[in-house]
Amino acid sequence: MSRPTSKPFATQGSSTQRRERSLVPVGMATILPHTAQRVRHLEETLMTSLGRWGYREIIPPTFEYLDVLSAGLEPDVIEKCYQFADRTTGRILLLRPDVTAQIARIVAMGMVGRSMPLRLCYRTTVFRYEPEHAGRDREIFQVGAELIGLDDVATDGEIIALMVECLKQLGLPAFKISLGHVGFFKALLAKSGMSMDGQKRAEQAAARKDLPRLEEILSSERVPGKQARAILEAPGLYGRDEVIERGRVLAGRDRQLRATLDRLTQVYRLLVSAGMRDHLLLDLGEFRGFDYYDGVVFDVFAAGVGCELGGGGRYNHLIGRFGRDLPSTGFAFDVDRLFRAMECLEGGLPRSRVDFLIAAPVARSDRLFQVSQMLRNAGFRVVQRVARATGSTGIRSLVEEGRAQGASVVAILAGTRVAPDEALIVAASSEVLRQPGFNKMVGKRVKVKDLPSLLAVVPEGIMSSAIKADASARSVRT
Amino acid sequence: MSRPTSKPFATQGSSTQRRERSLVPVGMATILPHTAQRVRHLEETLMTSLGRWGYREIIPPTFEYLDVLSAGLEPDVIEKCYQFADRTTGRILLLRPDVTAQIARIVAMGMVGRSMPLRLCYRTTVFRYEPEHAGRDREIFQVGAELIGLDDVATDGEIIALMVECLKQLGLPAFKISLGHVGFFKALLAKSGMSMDGQKRAEQAAARKDLPRLEEILSSERVPGKQARAILEAPGLYGRDEVIERGRVLAGRDRQLRATLDRLTQVYRLLVSAGMRDHLLLDLGEFRGFDYYDGVVFDVFAAGVGCELGGGGRYNHLIGRFGRDLPSTGFAFDVDRLFRAMECLEGGLPRSRVDFLIAAPVARSDRLFQVSQMLRNAGFRVVQRVARATGSTGIRSLVEEGRAQGASVVAILAGTRVAPDEALIVAASSEVLRQPGFNKMVGKRVKVKDLPSLLAVVPEGIMSSAIKADASARSVRT
Repeated sequence: MSRPTSKPFATQGSSTQRRERSLVPVGMATILPHTAQRVRHLEETLMTSLGRWGYREIIPPTFEYLDVLSAGLEPDVIEKCYQFADRTTGRILLLRPDVTAQIARIVAMGMVGRSMPLRLCYRTTVFRYEPEHAGRDREIFQVGAELIGLDDVATDGEIIALMVECLKQLGLPAFKISLGHVGFFKALLAKSGMSMDGQKRAEQAAARKDLPRLEEILSSERVPGKQARAILEAPGLYGRDEVIERGRVLAGRDRQLRATLDRLTQVYRLLVSAGMRDHLLLDLGEFRGFDYYDGVVFDVFAAGVGCELGGGGRYNHLIGRFGRDLPSTGFAFDVDRLFRAMECLEGGLPRSRVDFLIAAPVARSDRLFQVSQMLRNAGFRVVQRVARATGSTGIRSLVEEGRAQGASVVAILAGTRVAPDEALIVAASSEVLRQPGFNKMVGKRVKVKDLPSLLAVVPEGIMSSAIKADASARSVRT
Repeated sequence: MSRPTSKPFATQGSSTQRRERSLVPVGMATILPHTAQRVRHLEETLMTSLGRWGYREIIPPTFEYLDVLSAGLEPDVIEKCYQFADRTTGRILLLRPDVTAQIARIVAMGMVGRSMPLRLCYRTTVFRYEPEHAGRDREIFQVGAELIGLDDVATDGEIIALMVECLKQLGLPAFKISLGHVGFFKALLAKSGMSMDGQKRAEQAAARKDLPRLEEILSSERVPGKQARAILEAPGLYGRDEVIERGRVLAGRDRQLRATLDRLTQVYRLLVSAGMRDHLLLDLGEFRGFDYYDGVVFDVFAAGVGCELGGGGRYNHLIGRFGRDLPSTGFAFDVDRLFRAMECLEGGLPRSRVDFLIAAPVARSDRLFQVSQMLRNAGFRVVQRVARATGSTGIRSLVEEGRAQGASVVAILAGTRVAPDEALIVAASSEVLRQPGFNKMVGKRVKVKDLPSLLAVVPEGIMSSAIKADASARSVRT
């Protein structure tokens, strides 16, 4: 997969640092708390959807032996792998550049059992060297699914419907699946009498939609006019039902071309009948970056992100390269790009928050543990804090800390006239203060057992509301 | 950290394969679905607990530059790192062998902001070469927490209380925290007049509780009798309050020794007052494997696992090695070992299941999507399946598939006298059949809208009940 843009949630050394001597490897991400929470939420949502469809998570190892995994990888993917010699055996290890090939290896070895079909899913990272100047990333988060052991229209349909469902669960409103069949273009090329090498180069040009280059190749391979025109037309064929019509004209009476169109049509109709028409776009020039695909393939695009968010397709012969032929299909999301698409949405991703910051002088540490734990057991996020000073300076620094943590309520278990079963509220977010009867709360004592009621209107789990200690929160002397 | 035993949830090539030519790198785990689900459940439980205490997740990069990270790593840890040259810069990259050092680097760079304290947590893997013959693992899952920017008894107490809370949330009943202070033994050695090298070797021997070796070192360093006896006694001092008493005798009037004992005592008392007495054990010989610890340290042990499940401690000068001195404390769990401890418990980890396997002939694919989705929206896990044949052979293979998936109910949207809004139940688990009025359900038609009620007594989320298609489930002719 090509990766034209840089990672949005990565925090890397600044460009100044990088020009001097980078402290962090280029293309490697440190995902900071605010973003990490949202990335994990996205990942969880996807994994929950996959689980609902009966897909079970598998966690593949980070390393593989090159001599083993290379059966499932193209030469140019292998070139981008991180490789090093294994100290113990001297064999070359690589960091996984692709999960599908890994799962194919694992399934072929019979590790997941022999009963088919298998529905597997994963969340993990893949690693690839990318040219530095492109600012591309080298550690790529993926969530994906594989449906192994079946080759039929329903299975092609299921994997695409599952991808659509994942995107809907995320709340992504406008996305398009571009749907094609790699066999169509390949059969056009094979039929043209081109050399194998010429076919390969033509595929690569078509995948990049590089028509001038494609024309050059066709001419150097002396492909006859009518066939050359069909080959040049195919990559531009995308739209709705009319694509199939035009495809049939190009196919003529060729049985293989017609068969690929039939399969594509059936999958398309199945998805339309399942109510997904608005998300679908047929594309006879659809190509995936991996050469193991050999059937219906697809990519997903969304507004605001200029590259595919994920994609997949049928690979009926990949597992066979590891010794056990099993027809399969699957897809993967690029979590980083999905994150970017979600960021374009208002309220699409949760914001982090802390509910309570509870403080107490050191002499009341035991009470601090007790109260904090009571609130946590009620489902709140609670930071506990020993306050060195409980005078105005101490309180000010607590309020400051509450604001830094995004706490909704800051309370202290101390103060004059504050009973052992009471807390003094020293700051609260505007959301809390807006509640009827709560507007004068700051500076007041409340029973510890009543603390949860302060956040009663902010039910747990509504993480998407941005709750922050308001700048207007006041500090008081105790 | 030493790792005396092998990874329980790893599925590796068999030993026969390994003697020939392993297909999977030694010490690398493939975690299969049944186990993966339980490992993720464990991880989620821990992360939820950490979140409740206000700890926010950070996701560090997988690689670091050796020349940068080495400031935070001991020579023998560096020796165990996976290293390779960066193609772009020629500098040496390493796969992270330790997350704490990485977070120290990230915090020192100011990436997480300058406002202190910081409460951070993580779930990730670390990588270390381990000798092959020991069968040790090289990809280690960890969940951990760091509390950065404070140096006081309350903070030491918080991080330990948090670890205790994590273990309680997991439902682990019998575990012990062994609590010590690295400064005590170090001060004893320093006081003895030993060479720096001798001190280092003595520490290592004490960490392994290798008393004969320790005695040998003391004698070669000509440590006077009384001091040598104190040094030899310390590693054996573990228990409750009496350890402090005896420690005070060994400390005599030495101010440094007394200060470490005072700190340890205060932390111990705080935790006792917070109700954790039963889980605590004082250990004046407690040592962690990393030399960056310089205060109160701790390890956690549980029945059934002969090595520590995790541990941590105070490291007030580690972040300073990266340029910004910040007192800190933290801990990490070895997820693999926690998993093993949990496995010893009945019902300690969830079992995987699928609620419904819904099948339909290809002509009713749209209905299949619809019904499956309705059930998923109601919170069920549903495998959807196009049945090629709906005669007895087809049904038998569906029942077989339902059993393989662990489905509670297998139903088909077809059959004679089965109306469009009905489904035919072809198999059900004994749990389902045990419900009043449901015992004759197999072979019956039910309204599709009533399917959820079949699993009404198996509420979603009760994942720990082992639901399996019972061997007694019958297949029927339609």
